[in-house]
Amino acid sequence: MEAAAPSSATAAPPPAITAEAIREAARRLDGVALKTPCLAAPRLSQLTGANIFVKYENLQPTASFKERGAYNKLTSLTEAERRGGVIAMSAGNHAQAVAYHAAQLGISAVIVMPERTPFVKVNATEGYGARVVLAGETIAESAEACAEIAAAEGRLLIHPYDDPRIVAGQGTIGFEMLEAVPELDVIVVPIGGGGLIAGIATAAKAIKPEIRIVGVEAKLFPSCYAALRGEPGRCGGSTIAEGIAVKTIGKVTLPIIAALVERVILVDEPTLEWAVNAYLTLQKTMAEGAGAAGLAALLAEPDLFRGLNVGLVLCGGNIDPRIAASIMVRELTRAGRIIAIESDYPDEPGLLARITSAVGRAGGNILEVTHNRLTLTHLARETSIRLTIETRDDAHTQRIVEAVRAAGLPVRLTEHVDGRF
Amino acid sequence: MEAAAPSSATAAPPPAITAEAIREAARRLDGVALKTPCLAAPRLSQLTGANIFVKYENLQPTASFKERGAYNKLTSLTEAERRGGVIAMSAGNHAQAVAYHAAQLGISAVIVMPERTPFVKVNATEGYGARVVLAGETIAESAEACAEIAAAEGRLLIHPYDDPRIVAGQGTIGFEMLEAVPELDVIVVPIGGGGLIAGIATAAKAIKPEIRIVGVEAKLFPSCYAALRGEPGRCGGSTIAEGIAVKTIGKVTLPIIAALVERVILVDEPTLEWAVNAYLTLQKTMAEGAGAAGLAALLAEPDLFRGLNVGLVLCGGNIDPRIAASIMVRELTRAGRIIAIESDYPDEPGLLARITSAVGRAGGNILEVTHNRLTLTHLARETSIRLTIETRDDAHTQRIVEAVRAAGLPVRLTEHVDGRF
Repeated sequence: MEAAAPSSATAAPPPAITAEAIREAARRLDGVALKTPCLAAPRLSQLTGANIFVKYENLQPTASFKERGAYNKLTSLTEAERRGGVIAMSAGNHAQAVAYHAAQLGISAVIVMPERTPFVKVNATEGYGARVVLAGETIAESAEACAEIAAAEGRLLIHPYDDPRIVAGQGTIGFEMLEAVPELDVIVVPIGGGGLIAGIATAAKAIKPEIRIVGVEAKLFPSCYAALRGEPGRCGGSTIAEGIAVKTIGKVTLPIIAALVERVILVDEPTLEWAVNAYLTLQKTMAEGAGAAGLAALLAEPDLFRGLNVGLVLCGGNIDPRIAASIMVRELTRAGRIIAIESDYPDEPGLLARITSAVGRAGGNILEVTHNRLTLTHLARETSIRLTIETRDDAHTQRIVEAVRAAGLPVRLTEHVDGRF
Repeated sequence: MEAAAPSSATAAPPPAITAEAIREAARRLDGVALKTPCLAAPRLSQLTGANIFVKYENLQPTASFKERGAYNKLTSLTEAERRGGVIAMSAGNHAQAVAYHAAQLGISAVIVMPERTPFVKVNATEGYGARVVLAGETIAESAEACAEIAAAEGRLLIHPYDDPRIVAGQGTIGFEMLEAVPELDVIVVPIGGGGLIAGIATAAKAIKPEIRIVGVEAKLFPSCYAALRGEPGRCGGSTIAEGIAVKTIGKVTLPIIAALVERVILVDEPTLEWAVNAYLTLQKTMAEGAGAAGLAALLAEPDLFRGLNVGLVLCGGNIDPRIAASIMVRELTRAGRIIAIESDYPDEPGLLARITSAVGRAGGNILEVTHNRLTLTHLARETSIRLTIETRDDAHTQRIVEAVRAAGLPVRLTEHVDGRF
């Protein structure tokens, strides 16, 4: 993992995003967005060596922080703008947040999503009462469709991050975290377009100037990291942190980040998966990939945070259940808790009983048996057997493999990872 | 689902478990066990028609409420008892709670678990610093081993529920819930041995006498339900709510339940799975089967709770990741979001391409293809093809099936459930 220091300590944030604007947003949001809990997470602290506090933005009604900015923006519209309705382009949390609060406020909303958006997101957004338009194979094409509809129907575009009202709304999280845990040394915040971190940094530094703010991006989408160094960012690829897979950092947000954020950490996909799993299995909470990015940064760079009071913004929980399920099972495999052993044997009766008995006596829990007599890589008289087994740990895995070998059955360990990667 | 009214309004709770004992426990627990959040859950409210507030006991350090009672008990020991050490018999949350707090308090702890206890639970308990002894194939055999070790080593047995100190510790939840949400009309509490509900009922009724307390048991383990009717309970079977799979309700707890609990609702396994999934996918939090039992009761009997302010005690989050993953995928199937279509066709080239193209054009997302030429139920010249497909909803499923049929391919829908069961 690499870390970038801002290229220079540049100008103060533009006056549009002041601590006072965030305080005003906090007053407006009072009783609307949840004052989510910010709680000690001892099991994550044990995992990382830092003293971790988690801000549970996944408990918001639409399960992400985006409601704060959306509501703050929607309540700032003129009467004519409200009557004209709004439009937003998003396949994710911004879509749901705008749809939800527009409905609550009685404002008509259209959400434009790329054509291949997963059903679960379309359904969720329609469920909040917005009209969803599927348009474009790429984000650029969707943006074009969005502009056309906005023009044709006279709707106001609600930008997901590059808007002072949006940034001020997200910033309320910074006040709440320091109110709940004044002893925080550092707050770690995922960066997509930069609205969340720009708001939190402004708010937190206003209360506690010495607090450190660290950003996190997916290694596949290092747009802010690159922009801070004045380099072109090479963005692309399939990340589970699609909520922060943003190719261009905001014009409003970048100067604030340059001035207030200490560094940006890049995290790779296996570390993001590890973090999603750690939230689920250790902290019993569901984080989407982007929501787990802060924890991933601590897993990637534990030495930067050891012993510090670290606030993690768990910014969203909207992960596809199939992806979450698959991450949990993959992590058991990575941890050496699920292994596969495999071998080719003469095809004779009783063989499967011998191998499964040996595994059972060694205390292995057989999850799956595959028996293959057909593929041409085997001799005609041989059969290939593959057992997927749950084990206790690495030492237990070794005992199982030795037990099978001791029963006269040669065997290969085909899926087993020592340590993390 | 059936509901039992208590057989009679019997005696007042024995003096050992008074509101004052619970207040004392609350003072002792201050700063030790987490004052967990109790928050509105709008998506669960929408699902059930009740106005739901969730008490997140899964955020405790060992992810269950059991710490409250364990700590309250451990701090009541005499100096001699502390030096002699403690012992507990549990494969679950009580084991981890005793292990964790005994270690924090410098008390030696032995935990006896049945021999077939899942590795994840053994590891977690050992990780908190306790000595784990695996003994017995049944609970009765484990209890025998536990008594032997207790006698041989002079250790004090910490009972999981039938102890006034344990009940008083769990009761602190009742105070916290009404402090956070005074307008609660009813609190729904899972029942295993009855310690949790006896404590909460005593505390809550002391503050707000008109509050209603409803208990929940797994249909496979209706021990309290039966005891309240003076009937023998037929307990047994494999439930995902193993935390409340208790065959005998407590002697200390039963009279309190008879006096203070309005009814006990029994929930079946599909409803428990539905509740675990709803917590994960709608509320973004991980509940074990027993932890989700309260929500399951509302899903089973929505008319009893419609429009009321309902407090759900999400009492624990220690679910095996493989089980949680499997529940999420099964629920997508139940919801009609994952279907399988299947048919037998003449075994000719190009067939798979035709059927997959038809599905793709109709917007179905193919997850798995199985192609079977071997089983004897097929004619020798036929092949069986089975596609597992993700769809948007029931109407979309119908469009996909029709599209395949319109392409000249007869097809059966083999896994699809309309509505819930």
